[in-house]
Amino acid sequence: MKLLEERILKDGKVGAGNVLKVDSFLNHQIDVPFITLLGEEFHRLFSDEGVNKILTIEASGIGIACLTAVRFGVPVVFAKKTLTSNIYADVYTSSAFSYTHQKNYEIVVSKQFLGEGDRVLIIDDFLAKGSALLALISLVREAGAEVVGAGIVIEKAYQEGGSVVRAQGVRVESLARIASMSVEDGIRFVD
Amino acid sequence: MKLLEERILKDGKVGAGNVLKVDSFLNHQIDVPFITLLGEEFHRLFSDEGVNKILTIEASGIGIACLTAVRFGVPVVFAKKTLTSNIYADVYTSSAFSYTHQKNYEIVVSKQFLGEGDRVLIIDDFLAKGSALLALISLVREAGAEVVGAGIVIEKAYQEGGSVVRAQGVRVESLARIASMSVEDGIRFVD
Repeated sequence: MKLLEERILKDGKVGAGNVLKVDSFLNHQIDVPFITLLGEEFHRLFSDEGVNKILTIEASGIGIACLTAVRFGVPVVFAKKTLTSNIYADVYTSSAFSYTHQKNYEIVVSKQFLGEGDRVLIIDDFLAKGSALLALISLVREAGAEVVGAGIVIEKAYQEGGSVVRAQGVRVESLARIASMSVEDGIRFVD
Repeated sequence: MKLLEERILKDGKVGAGNVLKVDSFLNHQIDVPFITLLGEEFHRLFSDEGVNKILTIEASGIGIACLTAVRFGVPVVFAKKTLTSNIYADVYTSSAFSYTHQKNYEIVVSKQFLGEGDRVLIIDDFLAKGSALLALISLVREAGAEVVGAGIVIEKAYQEGGSVVRAQGVRVESLARIASMSVEDGIRFVD
């Protein structure tokens, strides 16, 4: 999506350690009119899939998921992160690894809000090694619901997450795919 | 707001320890079409205030804030919670106490995203003892920005938060105000 690539080049900051900071419009300050356009693009891509629920993970996925759900007219469920396993009753859980914090965490969703017959679109801000996305997919499947696809704002295409998830037969649509990124050479997108 | 009161009576669950669970539509599953109506009400209430930024706190405020910001056409900034003080540079910080987790935490907002001239509407899901809201107000003032008001979905009016914040001269608009609540007698709203 050209508009997003231009915005990343204009406002994104590449930092040490493979970090892309886009917190001026995506995950600390949320440019709501702009993110609404991304939501419309996700709707265009997945409008034929009979989506009845959007799933994301706290915290930075929530805004994008809600602004996408406006166009679908469906609810958002956000998975909660917790460091403690099995403290909740009646939840689906799945494990993920945070490369930022270098530790495992559990994600949980109440069984009330996900189940058989649900056609779930997963929305998230970033896809890199895929740990969070794989955990969300596993959780949807555990619930007996169907993953119709994943809508990602920014995919680091030079990392393995996208390939691993696509190899599972999940349709992944990333609005910007970064081919390479460094402080010296800046950001290049996949053609 | 009648529509919200009816929804709380229908789907809210009063639990032990002064807990109102509204996670089927507000803070785990988000009923986006319904919350959009709440956002429109916040817009009606604060449309004359020249709001140019909406501030909330992660995680459960983000959805409501974004769905309100759609009508205002302004960005959302969400404060991040952290247990560690002073680990970030160039941020405004403020302290709050979590009654749920019985511990203090810091909230932080990057100095880039809040400053002089900003007219800030604070949005949050709950107001009870007011700790989080007071921390947000303090943070906005530290930034030299102006709080034009606070839009709250559910106020526990039998707790002191609302009075304390209003006594500071801040306009607080709560869409539902609970007068009393118990497992035995259910929920009563302020007339």
